[in-house]
Amino acid sequence: MLIVQKYGGSSVGSLERIRNCAARVLATQRAGHDVVVVVSAMSGETNRLIALANQLAALERAPEAEARPGRGPYVASERAGDRDHERELDQLMCTGENVSAALLAMALQNAGGAAISLVGPQIGMRTDGTHTNARITSVDHARLRLELSAGRVVVCAGFQGVGPDGNITTLGRGGSDTSAVALAAALKADVCEILTDVDGVYTTDPRVEPRARKIPRITYEEMLELASLGAKVLQIRSVEFAMKYSVPVHVRSSLNDNEGTWIMSEQRNLESAVVTGVALDRNEAKVTLTNVPDRPGTVAAIFGQLARANIIVDMIIQNASRGGSTDVTFTVPENDLRNAVVELRRLELQGAGPMEVLSDAEICKISIVGVGMRTHAGVAARAFEILGSENINIQMVSTSEIKVSVIVHERYGELALRALHAGFGLDAEVEASA
Amino acid sequence: MLIVQKYGGSSVGSLERIRNCAARVLATQRAGHDVVVVVSAMSGETNRLIALANQLAALERAPEAEARPGRGPYVASERAGDRDHERELDQLMCTGENVSAALLAMALQNAGGAAISLVGPQIGMRTDGTHTNARITSVDHARLRLELSAGRVVVCAGFQGVGPDGNITTLGRGGSDTSAVALAAALKADVCEILTDVDGVYTTDPRVEPRARKIPRITYEEMLELASLGAKVLQIRSVEFAMKYSVPVHVRSSLNDNEGTWIMSEQRNLESAVVTGVALDRNEAKVTLTNVPDRPGTVAAIFGQLARANIIVDMIIQNASRGGSTDVTFTVPENDLRNAVVELRRLELQGAGPMEVLSDAEICKISIVGVGMRTHAGVAARAFEILGSENINIQMVSTSEIKVSVIVHERYGELALRALHAGFGLDAEVEASA
Repeated sequence: MLIVQKYGGSSVGSLERIRNCAARVLATQRAGHDVVVVVSAMSGETNRLIALANQLAALERAPEAEARPGRGPYVASERAGDRDHERELDQLMCTGENVSAALLAMALQNAGGAAISLVGPQIGMRTDGTHTNARITSVDHARLRLELSAGRVVVCAGFQGVGPDGNITTLGRGGSDTSAVALAAALKADVCEILTDVDGVYTTDPRVEPRARKIPRITYEEMLELASLGAKVLQIRSVEFAMKYSVPVHVRSSLNDNEGTWIMSEQRNLESAVVTGVALDRNEAKVTLTNVPDRPGTVAAIFGQLARANIIVDMIIQNASRGGSTDVTFTVPENDLRNAVVELRRLELQGAGPMEVLSDAEICKISIVGVGMRTHAGVAARAFEILGSENINIQMVSTSEIKVSVIVHERYGELALRALHAGFGLDAEVEASA
Repeated sequence: MLIVQKYGGSSVGSLERIRNCAARVLATQRAGHDVVVVVSAMSGETNRLIALANQLAALERAPEAEARPGRGPYVASERAGDRDHERELDQLMCTGENVSAALLAMALQNAGGAAISLVGPQIGMRTDGTHTNARITSVDHARLRLELSAGRVVVCAGFQGVGPDGNITTLGRGGSDTSAVALAAALKADVCEILTDVDGVYTTDPRVEPRARKIPRITYEEMLELASLGAKVLQIRSVEFAMKYSVPVHVRSSLNDNEGTWIMSEQRNLESAVVTGVALDRNEAKVTLTNVPDRPGTVAAIFGQLARANIIVDMIIQNASRGGSTDVTFTVPENDLRNAVVELRRLELQGAGPMEVLSDAEICKISIVGVGMRTHAGVAARAFEILGSENINIQMVSTSEIKVSVIVHERYGELALRALHAGFGLDAEVEASA
């Protein structure tokens, strides 16, 4: 078999851990497989590099500021959109993965294996050239094949590709997952293993519901709908990629040999339950517009304004018209709420009375997901019944073929999640003694 | 003018210093010049990366050793000669320069300049492919020219090139100097500025002789002969390269605008003194072989044996023959002394009596260098006179067209250096009050 293994930042977070990864890779190779490895930067390294860039910019504004500590993790560049700056940010950030790749190749050699690291253009991953958030366009796997046929483990630096002009472009936060799936697709690998510090994908967040169960198999579609669960485990774009090219993905722990979660196409997923998982998303906020003139083009004007401000709208509800005006309610990421309200108050719509903009950040979204819904009627009704029996008021509902999402008050979020998790039979078996 | 500026590790050792480099680069550009910059890794970074590789290797031998601190700076890889390992070491080490290059390009942009960093194959520097110590074979400067003509400052990561097989190869310790000179040669730059933390090249080591003077102009040949002075300021290979392609090199401080030392060809160096500088080298040791059979091939056998053991021999003296046998005395680097003695004791020469191998590490070499010697007779005689008046015994002498070297007992090294420095008129002018 040809196996692509991706090790995340915590799995290569120290020299000791890199050595453990090497042992696992060599065991896989000794079992008779060809192995391509994709690595992330050592944990913390990407943030350290971004902090350097931000501190350097801060220095230009206030030279005496150097002594200030870095401005926390995951601070996006302040010069987003400045292409020259983003190009340099990519040149800077990719060094994190390059270091991991070289160290893992050395660790494999130290343990007696044959290995080579590939970085930047050596990998053959071509992108559309968008700095800091590139999309993969093609993979030239000639070099990879050559090294594999020489009996080597090939360790590729993740998160990066080369644009049409020969510049390094990175694939966005978590991009190493997408690197791994893209290489697996190009090489027609038998499996893409995502080795991480959790056991797999769970029916819900185990920190909220201790009775959450590991899902043995899940379809690409379900995984995409469970983005808020899945995003903690792997970059959601990698799932889109895996679905497009039918790459079987196996999310599993780098610390043991347990089976994790297989993400695969529906026809291969024989044992699907009606509901596969329940997700809680606290990062949404609700906006209600009252007195919206009920005429063609109005709704387009509203959402066009938000789109131009790069605000992503999730659920939308429009109430029935009452005498020429209507109410529109929708949700946006909580971070964007303030900005959304500002944008909407700017909007001057020709109409009856003045439009009012109301906002509410104290909400959350619960989603139940399962491909079984396609063939099982009444899943939504059953969900409402479960929430009703807990006296939880449903503020908004949205459904798709394989998902039901409801908006409830923030304070009922965890209760709702546990009730739905139990109600759809997802709780783990209780111990015999209980 | 087209100016290549090289900033060393201490000049880019912090974000504040990188910002200062950016200001200097932009000032040069605003004065109407095209500027190509070559950067080293931030000080300490190369050692940190090598330490990671060594710690990883140590871990394989003794997994519990991770807690041990790194094994000090400048520890060479223990797996020298293992090509696969050295390839990975190059992949690892070059990231240090890549980070500096991206950060300096950002600093230039932050300050309002147009800049781009080039790393690895983007630079167009081709090498012979020898890992960890590659030689530059050619420079394809198409990309560089393109960026310059777009009005950009081009920041190149130093220390690296790409071998015939597309692998990154590094140029050895201090290789960024050679990168800079090679780019200056390829671009036919007007000057290659080596910006460092000293003011230039001195007539001797100012820590030994406070009256040492900065040398305003020095020829390539003198600089090569003064290797032990020069090696602290710039990689000696870069001087060979500069001489071969007649690149004027200007060694100067990155902290001020003072003129430093110009290294150039003799015909441009109009004001050369008889003696330009005096150097003290403590890292030599003396070996004497007695009872060496005085017949053809014997000396070749001796030095062939040492060459095969990679021991570099410096000065050689063979005494006149006394009845079929002779004495041979030579110097080797002090580090190689033990190994040299072992190799020589192995040697079985057909001859009269048993050959004796004597060694003495308590010596040092003093060299006086100057192109003026070519036309001024009696420089060696004057040097012996100066040393004689201080009662310093001369153990060995070697002369070249522009250099006189003497071996004296280690304890007289500094005295000899000061006496020669003063005797040849190199001392700085004394203050009027003195």
